[in-house]
Amino acid sequence: MPSIFDQDLPQTPANYASISPLSFIERSASVYPQRLAIVHGTGPDTLRRTWSQLYDRCRQLASALQKSGVAKGDTVAVMLPNTPAMVEAHFGVPMAGAVLNAINTRLDPQTVAFMLDHGEARTVIVDTEFSPVMAKALAMRSSTSPIQVIDVSDALYTGDAKAIGSIDYEAFIADGDPHYAWQLPENEWDAIALNYTSGTTGNPKGVVYHHRGAATAAISNILEWDMPKHAVYLWTLPMFHCNGWCFPWAIAARAGVNVCLRKVEAKAIFDAIREHGVTHYCGAPIVHSLLVNAPGALKEGVPQGVKAMVAGAAPPASMIEGMERLGFDLLHVYGLTETYGPATVCAKHDEWNDLDIGERARLNARQGINYHLERGITVMDPQTMQPVPADGETMGEIMFRGNIAMKGYLKNPKATQEALSGGWFHSGDLAVMDPDGYVKIKDRSKDIIISGGENISSIEVEDVLYRHPDILAAAVVARSDTRWGETPCAFVELKEGAEASADAIIEHCKKHLAGFKVPRAVVFCELPKTSTGKIQKFELRKQAELLDPAKS
Amino acid sequence: MPSIFDQDLPQTPANYASISPLSFIERSASVYPQRLAIVHGTGPDTLRRTWSQLYDRCRQLASALQKSGVAKGDTVAVMLPNTPAMVEAHFGVPMAGAVLNAINTRLDPQTVAFMLDHGEARTVIVDTEFSPVMAKALAMRSSTSPIQVIDVSDALYTGDAKAIGSIDYEAFIADGDPHYAWQLPENEWDAIALNYTSGTTGNPKGVVYHHRGAATAAISNILEWDMPKHAVYLWTLPMFHCNGWCFPWAIAARAGVNVCLRKVEAKAIFDAIREHGVTHYCGAPIVHSLLVNAPGALKEGVPQGVKAMVAGAAPPASMIEGMERLGFDLLHVYGLTETYGPATVCAKHDEWNDLDIGERARLNARQGINYHLERGITVMDPQTMQPVPADGETMGEIMFRGNIAMKGYLKNPKATQEALSGGWFHSGDLAVMDPDGYVKIKDRSKDIIISGGENISSIEVEDVLYRHPDILAAAVVARSDTRWGETPCAFVELKEGAEASADAIIEHCKKHLAGFKVPRAVVFCELPKTSTGKIQKFELRKQAELLDPAKS
Repeated sequence: MPSIFDQDLPQTPANYASISPLSFIERSASVYPQRLAIVHGTGPDTLRRTWSQLYDRCRQLASALQKSGVAKGDTVAVMLPNTPAMVEAHFGVPMAGAVLNAINTRLDPQTVAFMLDHGEARTVIVDTEFSPVMAKALAMRSSTSPIQVIDVSDALYTGDAKAIGSIDYEAFIADGDPHYAWQLPENEWDAIALNYTSGTTGNPKGVVYHHRGAATAAISNILEWDMPKHAVYLWTLPMFHCNGWCFPWAIAARAGVNVCLRKVEAKAIFDAIREHGVTHYCGAPIVHSLLVNAPGALKEGVPQGVKAMVAGAAPPASMIEGMERLGFDLLHVYGLTETYGPATVCAKHDEWNDLDIGERARLNARQGINYHLERGITVMDPQTMQPVPADGETMGEIMFRGNIAMKGYLKNPKATQEALSGGWFHSGDLAVMDPDGYVKIKDRSKDIIISGGENISSIEVEDVLYRHPDILAAAVVARSDTRWGETPCAFVELKEGAEASADAIIEHCKKHLAGFKVPRAVVFCELPKTSTGKIQKFELRKQAELLDPAKS
Repeated sequence: MPSIFDQDLPQTPANYASISPLSFIERSASVYPQRLAIVHGTGPDTLRRTWSQLYDRCRQLASALQKSGVAKGDTVAVMLPNTPAMVEAHFGVPMAGAVLNAINTRLDPQTVAFMLDHGEARTVIVDTEFSPVMAKALAMRSSTSPIQVIDVSDALYTGDAKAIGSIDYEAFIADGDPHYAWQLPENEWDAIALNYTSGTTGNPKGVVYHHRGAATAAISNILEWDMPKHAVYLWTLPMFHCNGWCFPWAIAARAGVNVCLRKVEAKAIFDAIREHGVTHYCGAPIVHSLLVNAPGALKEGVPQGVKAMVAGAAPPASMIEGMERLGFDLLHVYGLTETYGPATVCAKHDEWNDLDIGERARLNARQGINYHLERGITVMDPQTMQPVPADGETMGEIMFRGNIAMKGYLKNPKATQEALSGGWFHSGDLAVMDPDGYVKIKDRSKDIIISGGENISSIEVEDVLYRHPDILAAAVVARSDTRWGETPCAFVELKEGAEASADAIIEHCKKHLAGFKVPRAVVFCELPKTSTGKIQKFELRKQAELLDPAKS
């Protein structure tokens, strides 16, 4: 017999609503209509819009998309920098019931064409800056179904590329109804966004986000940062990266300010921070390095206490120190496209403040613990699905579970099932768990080097290389070896004017690493990178195999 | 054909987890095990427990309940002041899959007996202070099914009542497993708590809360207050009121501090604020009045910026001014038992700061707009279900919808269906909507009296009066009271020749009602009636206000 609490107590529209970030903008526009929502540019020509205006424009976009034939479950692809139109797309597209596919603006036409085909985009919104790439991509599509192209002519674009679409964005939305009566999805499991992985092996996979997850990730960002209402958020992180880690929706929930930014440049960032009173921003390590290493003049008058999130790699001691000197508060988070961006945080503890910088950097270099509203993370042996001991030594795979894990890979049931098997999302990252429950990545599972039966973390070797004063960037990959199976091979980029020899670098490694972990070969070169700035290790692996054996 | 986004993208344990406040304590115990979770008392004997300790005790409670036979969907009733055991019940009971029924400690035995019967409580946990009432209630039960009684002997209880149960709480949980492997509910719609309304018409109704709603309400509290991690929360609001507005769960989500409090007294509150660094508290207007009107000596050294929430009645100008003088920041919220406590907030705007106190008080007296994660509120004509114009004049009924509305009334499908009809929860409160979308209550459709934050049903008191052999007719209305906000005032018509005195009638009420429900004044008169014979309560309210204060 069912419990008395399961009888005659049904879900109704009165007591159940789909969880969705679309509710956030509706509420902010209603409660704080005159509050600033969008800032674009600096100086007298700065564009400013309130939450009421932004909400109207998003509804216009939704309405215009619907009029143009976009229906529930259709894909709208966008190729946009962090402009007001990009923020609008994060609301207007799902308000039309469609799915937002924000495409990395650094991609080549062929990859873009693959995404348009695979995602079955029906409409494309493109900033003029990326029109040339998009024009080529459109010409390379396999699909013959019609595609509508809308041009965004951003006032701050200074190049001379030409529009390629059938209509300008402003003209397009002018035809939309600013009071369009959009609906929440009936099912919060409905897709809201499609984000392609960078595809280091084979074609990119299309990661599908749903409304429930997007809202949960957005609220978790707020909780993790103790982000107050009306925070001023600077868009240093591309919105095409995991939908800007779901921050467009988080900022709407806070009735905050989106400070747009076309390009990540130190001067533009410091100007925006000073002029618009920026309180929060996110970015890969390179963004923070850019600020730390900027000329002193640029930093003058920058307010204290700006909060920054870093992901993509652990912040080294020098970055932590530099940020402290700037007076910025740096927080290390970790996640993947499949986890809506960050899904762990290296939550700090007061007692860490008393430690020396080396120890603080070591603690902060960890990926940490599960994000606020994520159910859990663990480190497990992927074969046995048993957690590794929390000893800081035993390696396993980081796994996530809960509402901040993707709906799955689009049109790829096999990959979806594999990635979500055993009740956990398999990250592919190898890690240990420290006694305090904090996770520390040791390597990508495919980047691990197995030499003489011993696992070598390429990251560990790279960390040592980075500590050499002459080295700007480094990557270590496995190289086949008849005797050891594999040996570590280092590729390094030296700082300008630096002259360290291979022998000197190997000597440096010997001082800090067990013998079997020391690279057998050191190659000087410019490191190949993906459009998102990730080092292409698969390229380096190919090069490593072509090396003269005598060099090892 | 389904959209590509609805194909092969199923919910799995990897990417879907029930939303529940139980996750909150698990995470805080894991990330902040050594952080303070519980403080009870002041001075050298203060009891302190960390999140790790609290989590262990909650798991022990869950484990012990399960061992004792409590199963999924069973009810565990508690009659406890705001002690550590009460916090533990909010986690331990649902961890056992059971439903927490926190009973108002001011109720009379008959009403408690009704709740134990109706809620089918299987276990009761009672603080010794309330043993006498509970003993009577247990004796008055209609049900013959066995009930387990557990005594909480709180060290800070100073009275001489005796334990009545079969086991002491500490002994009971000592038998539980501190690592009990509790499970999230498979369905987030599962009940977590049962809270009885004050029963304005007939018997109290049992309002059922579910895990999804409890978590959503808790997070909304955090968002509304910008409540930072490790906030120090003082338990001035009884946890038996809508589960303390869901703050036990909110504080767990923040890894904050629960500062327990057996009794709401100015000295104890100011002592706790100073000694434990309290940052936040909630309460009915009487709580804040108590602080504002306390002797100056008590207030010395109280920190600035403490945040307070008030609900139950609009804060008058004098209270707003008094709180400002104290340096406290008062926020007005509104809700009902059916909305998990607050589900609207009178969100402040910077520009209000420049207004005079009268105008600020007027603006803050409004019930405001929907809570952060509540889908919406509106004011509608309940007949036509059309929203009233936002003109500040047209009256309608306040209605709520979304995830912060109850699952329904226990074993009362008719009342559930009525309350949730037309896609909205019908509050029964009459209001207008201002042009800025803020709601302002004008009257209560039910003649509820709110005394010291407690709802008193006028009908219940009238029923008792009618039982007096000398009384012909009776009506009870609210009368303003500087201390309690309102007190019940009785108007009675005696039978011909009858001579009962006011004192005799009050004595009669004391026998049948909880103390706070007993009328403070009894007026003998002929009751004014409408042509159809209905008593004109609005006339009586006017008369009540004109009474000589000495008569109360």
